[in-house]
Amino acid sequence: MMNSEFFFREKVSVGILGATGTVGQKFVQLLSGHPWFEITALGASEKSAGKTYREAVNWQMPVPIPPEIADMKVLPCTTDLPADLVFSGLDSNVAGPIETDFANAGFIVLTNSKNHRMDKDVPLLVPEVNADHLPLVKTQTYQHGGLIIANPNCSTVGLVIALKPLIKEFGVEKVHVVTLQAISGAGYPGVPSLDIIDNVIPYIPDEELKMQTESKKILGELVNNEIKPLEIAISAQCNRVPVTNGHMECVSIKLKRKVEKQELIKAWQELTGLPQDLDLPSAPEKPILYYNEENYPQPKLHRESSNGMVVSIGRLNDCPVLDYKFTLLSHNTIRGAAGGAILNAELMLKSGYIYW
Amino acid sequence: MMNSEFFFREKVSVGILGATGTVGQKFVQLLSGHPWFEITALGASEKSAGKTYREAVNWQMPVPIPPEIADMKVLPCTTDLPADLVFSGLDSNVAGPIETDFANAGFIVLTNSKNHRMDKDVPLLVPEVNADHLPLVKTQTYQHGGLIIANPNCSTVGLVIALKPLIKEFGVEKVHVVTLQAISGAGYPGVPSLDIIDNVIPYIPDEELKMQTESKKILGELVNNEIKPLEIAISAQCNRVPVTNGHMECVSIKLKRKVEKQELIKAWQELTGLPQDLDLPSAPEKPILYYNEENYPQPKLHRESSNGMVVSIGRLNDCPVLDYKFTLLSHNTIRGAAGGAILNAELMLKSGYIYW
Amino acid sequence: MMNSEFFFREKVSVGILGATGTVGQKFVQLLSGHPWFEITALGASEKSAGKTYREAVNWQMPVPIPPEIADMKVLPCTTDLPADLVFSGLDSNVAGPIETDFANAGFIVLTNSKNHRMDKDVPLLVPEVNADHLPLVKTQTYQHGGLIIANPNCSTVGLVIALKPLIKEFGVEKVHVVTLQAISGAGYPGVPSLDIIDNVIPYIPDEELKMQTESKKILGELVNNEIKPLEIAISAQCNRVPVTNGHMECVSIKLKRKVEKQELIKAWQELTGLPQDLDLPSAPEKPILYYNEENYPQPKLHRESSNGMVVSIGRLNDCPVLDYKFTLLSHNTIRGAAGGAILNAELMLKSGYIYW
Amino acid sequence: MMNSEFFFREKVSVGILGATGTVGQKFVQLLSGHPWFEITALGASEKSAGKTYREAVNWQMPVPIPPEIADMKVLPCTTDLPADLVFSGLDSNVAGPIETDFANAGFIVLTNSKNHRMDKDVPLLVPEVNADHLPLVKTQTYQHGGLIIANPNCSTVGLVIALKPLIKEFGVEKVHVVTLQAISGAGYPGVPSLDIIDNVIPYIPDEELKMQTESKKILGELVNNEIKPLEIAISAQCNRVPVTNGHMECVSIKLKRKVEKQELIKAWQELTGLPQDLDLPSAPEKPILYYNEENYPQPKLHRESSNGMVVSIGRLNDCPVLDYKFTLLSHNTIRGAAGGAILNAELMLKSGYIYW
Repeated sequence: MMNSEFFFREKVSVGILGATGTVGQKFVQLLSGHPWFEITALGASEKSAGKTYREAVNWQMPVPIPPEIADMKVLPCTTDLPADLVFSGLDSNVAGPIETDFANAGFIVLTNSKNHRMDKDVPLLVPEVNADHLPLVKTQTYQHGGLIIANPNCSTVGLVIALKPLIKEFGVEKVHVVTLQAISGAGYPGVPSLDIIDNVIPYIPDEELKMQTESKKILGELVNNEIKPLEIAISAQCNRVPVTNGHMECVSIKLKRKVEKQELIKAWQELTGLPQDLDLPSAPEKPILYYNEENYPQPKLHRESSNGMVVSIGRLNDCPVLDYKFTLLSHNTIRGAAGGAILNAELMLKSGYIYW
Repeated sequence: MMNSEFFFREKVSVGILGATGTVGQKFVQLLSGHPWFEITALGASEKSAGKTYREAVNWQMPVPIPPEIADMKVLPCTTDLPADLVFSGLDSNVAGPIETDFANAGFIVLTNSKNHRMDKDVPLLVPEVNADHLPLVKTQTYQHGGLIIANPNCSTVGLVIALKPLIKEFGVEKVHVVTLQAISGAGYPGVPSLDIIDNVIPYIPDEELKMQTESKKILGELVNNEIKPLEIAISAQCNRVPVTNGHMECVSIKLKRKVEKQELIKAWQELTGLPQDLDLPSAPEKPILYYNEENYPQPKLHRESSNGMVVSIGRLNDCPVLDYKFTLLSHNTIRGAAGGAILNAELMLKSGYIYW
Repeated sequence: MMNSEFFFREKVSVGILGATGTVGQKFVQLLSGHPWFEITALGASEKSAGKTYREAVNWQMPVPIPPEIADMKVLPCTTDLPADLVFSGLDSNVAGPIETDFANAGFIVLTNSKNHRMDKDVPLLVPEVNADHLPLVKTQTYQHGGLIIANPNCSTVGLVIALKPLIKEFGVEKVHVVTLQAISGAGYPGVPSLDIIDNVIPYIPDEELKMQTESKKILGELVNNEIKPLEIAISAQCNRVPVTNGHMECVSIKLKRKVEKQELIKAWQELTGLPQDLDLPSAPEKPILYYNEENYPQPKLHRESSNGMVVSIGRLNDCPVLDYKFTLLSHNTIRGAAGGAILNAELMLKSGYIYW
Repeated sequence: MMNSEFFFREKVSVGILGATGTVGQKFVQLLSGHPWFEITALGASEKSAGKTYREAVNWQMPVPIPPEIADMKVLPCTTDLPADLVFSGLDSNVAGPIETDFANAGFIVLTNSKNHRMDKDVPLLVPEVNADHLPLVKTQTYQHGGLIIANPNCSTVGLVIALKPLIKEFGVEKVHVVTLQAISGAGYPGVPSLDIIDNVIPYIPDEELKMQTESKKILGELVNNEIKPLEIAISAQCNRVPVTNGHMECVSIKLKRKVEKQELIKAWQELTGLPQDLDLPSAPEKPILYYNEENYPQPKLHRESSNGMVVSIGRLNDCPVLDYKFTLLSHNTIRGAAGGAILNAELMLKSGYIYW
């Protein structure tokens, strides 16, 4: 719970809900050494509570557990967690009411879970796209000043960042997207290896619907304290492929007016937003990198670019069915999950939203 | 070269051009024990000629080299090969003129290579789709009665089989397809493992163009000894994924008239063709299997169905941008290459085309 | 339960316990069309009981569910199952008491689970190696003539088949083995993909101990109704690798007397056993295939040889530490699990052991 | 060529031979931003010479090409390269004479290629193991003060670092090692994906012999200007597995005297060497990390530890055949190639060997 001591401490105290899961581990990795945030609480299930983090976690990150975290005691996800704000990587089976409880206890809750994403009063925030939706939190009625801010589904975030400048500059009528999504998007244990080695699974539960509905909310407008979703046709087909990290998306679009290929590339390259203007610690220098190489982007080569916070785009070509087609890549557990939530928190801190 | 002794021998003598390559090996595997064809010649590059097949080949098939083939001597690809017809799995760098030479020497040439596919007088044959294009060979002017018949690119064949009944029953205006293609499609050594393990490559040279142009030819009409390509908009985006065999395709279509989902499924399930009517040895019982399971088809589970000759379809759903979307799978080195060419040969034999 | 009607039916009625699991599915696949056995009962957990097999199973085999099985109703694993003998692919958490119950109800139980393997009165049977252990069942005291016969751990079976002829001909003092085991050995869901794609896990719970102790029992002698384990030093290190099927093992051995390399190869090639003499339906023509190619055997190329029932060996070379080293491969869910249990049943049937 | 200007420049000018290959790229990645070395020349084949590095290279590293390198012009590998010392990642087909030429032209040559490794006057250097072999270079007779220093084969380096403290403290008589090696060890294009996805290849040309002979040289003693190889029995079996980076090794050892498990772990944990004493930039804090977790080390989790320069060890257990067995992991293209060569260069610079 945010309190008056805030300005007297060097960093904001943050808790992680679901700290032992895949997204929780990524929060731990990314927040270790963060200039503004300090992990002061690790929340997890009853099974883990009481153990040290080292004991409780099946650590999967490619760097060791930060030493200052390894021996912290894991706590249950109850609202006496010693923190000012919490990042939630909770499983959607349990996230909904727990996050509500934390908000009602006065916490700022930055959630990666799907449960509150489509709540009318919750901004579904991608700072480069819809920072102007943040004031929607004023309509929230949690007690003690608590708030919930969500980041979108891991396959949605890359898409909306790529679409935003095109919508703004030229207008977009229709979007057709086919995804090739990494296994880490399913959490841990997630996808059994027998299901995915030497295979593709052409189905991810709810994913196509999430992409279609979340995108419209994010790209919508805040009018009279309500989000008016963008009117746009979006068709998504979602596949799981044997890649560890990095979601690829093959996108075709119909624009509202005829433009040249170079204009689209220019719009992407010139995209910038509040995270860049405010020089937020997790902000990529540019939200989008466009590659001219005909075989780029690729998950293995580009997912870690700009610390996993950039959207890589390439292969812009004419589409005989709609107008243009292209391929995009974004890191699903960084930009598409933990990194996105942290950027949201940075934006809120820097723009004063945690004290309105 | 076909000759008068034909009816006096038990089986047709066949040669394989490019017998040591990936497609060549698949020809050897599939033709071993074939009821109508007997491998009498293995043609390969100068480097391999003179060796036994066992010595010359880096055998990659999941079953041992057929014992009757293992010790056959590999020959150069010259037109004195002891065979009546030849299957060509030659690399496209060399296939063009060699196949022309064989045709001019009076051979029936069934080629899997791209070189002659778009020749005006060459049928691009998928028996369940366009057996009525076969008479086009009458316009060929190779000497001594030689002929060239091609089968399409491995990613095209599944698409045209899936589209054919829809075009016939309802009409199709637009097709959007995104592929997830197996590594065996690139031959051997083909895709380096460093490029594809834990990765997706969003580019396969020429593949998108091939899908777009070959499909129109196959789905076209033979009018006055010419193929009139189908007028249809096709947009393809092709990706290589870390799967050994089996090309997946995410397809969206716009139909000429409004139909119910069940009508599409019925059209697929009822598709049948000459190979089924003539009971050809390599023909699948049905050309298309439709799966109701929401996570089917999958390469690992369904690529070997009906000996790799069937097209598996699933996930038929409304498409918010076009009309319907679905996922298809076909085995790229069987239905999409060697098996397809063998089915073409069977059709020609049974329908008397080798003697016109 | 075996009964007097047996000789009047065409085939022996068999039940499968744990029919929806990985090993259970392999039993279904291998028993479909078996000349002697007919699946008359599918047993699984309470959760599955009552559903059709098609509904209950997450089918993973590379061929479709046999049509005659797909709509059979799954039953609970209770001893009123309509069958004469049962194959058990039960999870070891529950296998022990259930198998005991079935034996006490008069069933012949052929189990792939670990629970009864080291029981003093249970033969741990690999027909080409220790068919002479079968009389040990006479010491069993299950009611109504029930029996339990086990097959060994999937990594043990290849090793003992390779060692048997060497022990018999030359004597073996020490065995050092390092395994590279396939993911299917862990069942389903088994190994999470996040743990094994682009990775090796150098640990499989209990596996090293199993290889060390089971091998000694199998290679031991039946003396006075007791198995006297072979006195031999065996050291095993077990690794999980990202391979779907086929366990590789790098073996070094110290022999009791000096022999030439060719003598070892000859001993392997000449190995034969009761399954071959009796021409059992699942018996490979030869239990061992030796390859001279320096880069053989390989899981992808050789695991399916002889329908997955053969042990492939290669790379026999001098070992500077012990005497010789070599590499072996066997299919872990066929020879190492379901296929091995079926071969055991065939041996028992043909040699009259089910009626002693 | 080293020259008198050296002390007046801020950094040592270094060239990379074979700069576009897999090891060459790793040199570029690791040397970018190095405190002591500055890349001033990129040498490659005639085919690449004249192009910019960006044009010439098929960049495979997980970070972008360093901007200061991307537009450097690639040069042929001739001895007028503007550099004081050269790192060679040349293919062994061509490395031998080119490296000799560079040495005769007065360059310090730090080579990762195998060609000169077993030369009598070339130190096969692993600084934590045999820094005392460095004076062997005094016996070299290249003109103009040129020198060649080699680092060992990628699978050898981890083994000798693990063995060194055991040999020193307890004596080691016999070593049995089975490797599970990553595909990057074969360079680019290297291992075809069709050969390794869902597969293990139990053979790497020359690798077993290299491990056996190189280890003895590295672990030997410099006596009277000659390396006296260690007398020890080493048996290696080498496998390629579908892992991108990180070689695993299953090692069994026979010690000269009986020691407790804890003593071995202590010896590993206390190992330190000149790189640590001299605080070399590429030196890991400790050369060896021992893990108590029963399923560690793993390539995916630990290969990047200490920037890929540490040897991770775990699973120390009694070996029923020798004395102890354990598993080790080291990063094959960093510690086992480019990083190892750079550490060698740092050692030479800091210890004054480039001016003797």
